[in-house]
Amino acid sequence: MSIITLLTDFGSQDYFVGAMKGVILSINRHALIVDITHEIPPQDIETAAFNLLATYKDFPAATIHVAVVDPGVGSARKPILIECGEQFFVGPDNGIFSWICEREGKWRAFHLTNEEFFRHPVSATFHGRDIFAPVAAALASGVAVEDFGDEVRDYVRLNPLRPVVASDGTIDGRVVHIDRFGNCITNLTRESFSGDKPASGAKLRINGREISSFRNSFSEAAIDGDDL
Amino acid sequence: MSIITLLTDFGSQDYFVGAMKGVILSINRHALIVDITHEIPPQDIETAAFNLLATYKDFPAATIHVAVVDPGVGSARKPILIECGEQFFVGPDNGIFSWICEREGKWRAFHLTNEEFFRHPVSATFHGRDIFAPVAAALASGVAVEDFGDEVRDYVRLNPLRPVVASDGTIDGRVVHIDRFGNCITNLTRESFSGDKPASGAKLRINGREISSFRNSFSEAAIDGDDL
Amino acid sequence: MSIITLLTDFGSQDYFVGAMKGVILSINRHALIVDITHEIPPQDIETAAFNLLATYKDFPAATIHVAVVDPGVGSARKPILIECGEQFFVGPDNGIFSWICEREGKWRAFHLTNEEFFRHPVSATFHGRDIFAPVAAALASGVAVEDFGDEVRDYVRLNPLRPVVASDGTIDGRVVHIDRFGNCITNLTRESFSGDKPASGAKLRINGREISSFRNSFSEAAIDGDDL
Repeated sequence: MSIITLLTDFGSQDYFVGAMKGVILSINRHALIVDITHEIPPQDIETAAFNLLATYKDFPAATIHVAVVDPGVGSARKPILIECGEQFFVGPDNGIFSWICEREGKWRAFHLTNEEFFRHPVSATFHGRDIFAPVAAALASGVAVEDFGDEVRDYVRLNPLRPVVASDGTIDGRVVHIDRFGNCITNLTRESFSGDKPASGAKLRINGREISSFRNSFSEAAIDGDDL
Repeated sequence: MSIITLLTDFGSQDYFVGAMKGVILSINRHALIVDITHEIPPQDIETAAFNLLATYKDFPAATIHVAVVDPGVGSARKPILIECGEQFFVGPDNGIFSWICEREGKWRAFHLTNEEFFRHPVSATFHGRDIFAPVAAALASGVAVEDFGDEVRDYVRLNPLRPVVASDGTIDGRVVHIDRFGNCITNLTRESFSGDKPASGAKLRINGREISSFRNSFSEAAIDGDDL
Repeated sequence: MSIITLLTDFGSQDYFVGAMKGVILSINRHALIVDITHEIPPQDIETAAFNLLATYKDFPAATIHVAVVDPGVGSARKPILIECGEQFFVGPDNGIFSWICEREGKWRAFHLTNEEFFRHPVSATFHGRDIFAPVAAALASGVAVEDFGDEVRDYVRLNPLRPVVASDGTIDGRVVHIDRFGNCITNLTRESFSGDKPASGAKLRINGREISSFRNSFSEAAIDGDDL
């Protein structure tokens, strides 16, 4: 019984997510579908990438993550399947899985071209239902990754999540997500600092303004620390 | 393992949807419950009818769709079960399944009167939990449609979804849904036009205003074309 | 196949709920997870308590309810497990299960201290993922309640839900919830009145203002009547 997660910007007031689930269950009645969120701000690839990065490791090996935030739907952007970290990622090739590959290091990517696994006719605007959902369902049914299309050597990358460290020791991080409770999640992690924490006397500047005192706390979704 | 879908205007901040699921699972632990949406604007039957029309065909045969947008709850409106298109539809008799029957052509309808299958006591305001959910669960457990109540010869109908074609060739369509991305979905389909598309030189008027150029694109949820 | 329900104030735009589900499914692939709501207003324990009270009885025996509205996360408030009404309740000891225990009368409570059942490292701010979800999954897998920690003799209580009856017969109730449709749910039930309804000539005052006529209708979630 494979797990298929869904993460989209489709919202919850339309039939879109229901349609994806219907397509999956029509192909594979035993898939266990889990919603991560459908409330990504429309077309906000970075927010989608962050949320998936923050939770994919909580799922068991062989989980199939379908992420559809897809401003380029209907254009030349590729539909892809990535095998990475013992899991699978299905969606548009627009950087949405970029930070996961960056963290894991090893990955294989496939261009989804085998239309045998698509729902037909393929809508120009709803690849979530017509390409990504049925491909995930087929993958969950045991189809081999190689059967979906040719392996490709690269994928679209977002700006790296890892913060930039200057030669004088200044670390240039950024807020990658603001959650429902107002918490700002940055891309700074323990590993961003030598000695696992800011040096004594370190200063924090946000938008040029200096914050005189701050608590060391680290992103749950830190890119490179299992212990964070 | 039967699939039961839920589509309501209950929103997601109250316990209402959870209660329906608890009732279903208490009767049939093996039902697979899928949310279509619970964010239909309160009491907006047409939006509910459109969203269900747009996705029911994505689900496998024998799926049971429960739709509860029910301004007449507690009044004389009938609770009904419709068998149509190899699927089942459970909800208030207020037109919510009207467009599906219109598209499919063949249907059977039953007035839900057998209280043996209800949750008791039946609330005056929450038939979703007390009538529709338990009936769907019983149906998923193999109870025959005839056991829920008498067959009825008609059901409440919405205005037809099919656009009106005048003798001069003017087609009078309408926007039936505006989705999260701002797309306006009309009731015009390929079949609305002779030759499967607007005649060369056709003009589009919206609220009396002429749109000089437009792209031909057709509703995903077109009423009478599998190829749309 | 145990049922685990989730009720939180996490909202649906972040990865939080998905993370809890991933953790549960990593421990117990056969758990059946049901969302009650994730739209409790942030940190509103009473609204959470009301919604769970209103629906827990719709679920079968042995259901495990996880409720996380947890303003005290990271402080000294206890994580607890309560066995009550043939069901289980997992969450912070802040009163969230108080009204259920008040209704049921009999309960046993356990302080969750056995870190063997936690996800590690335990975040200071996300006990939903790191303590409550994995404990629920372990409980669903058959771990005995005693194995999670020591039994405790009390739990944090909210103000009683039961209305106050004065010696002159005045009943002092309150609105405990306003739902999506604008309905005000009070804590008055049939049993609040002698004879199961207000005395003839009874007057209703809301915020000091007298309402001249009113219909007797009773909360679905009434604290002490199975027939309501």
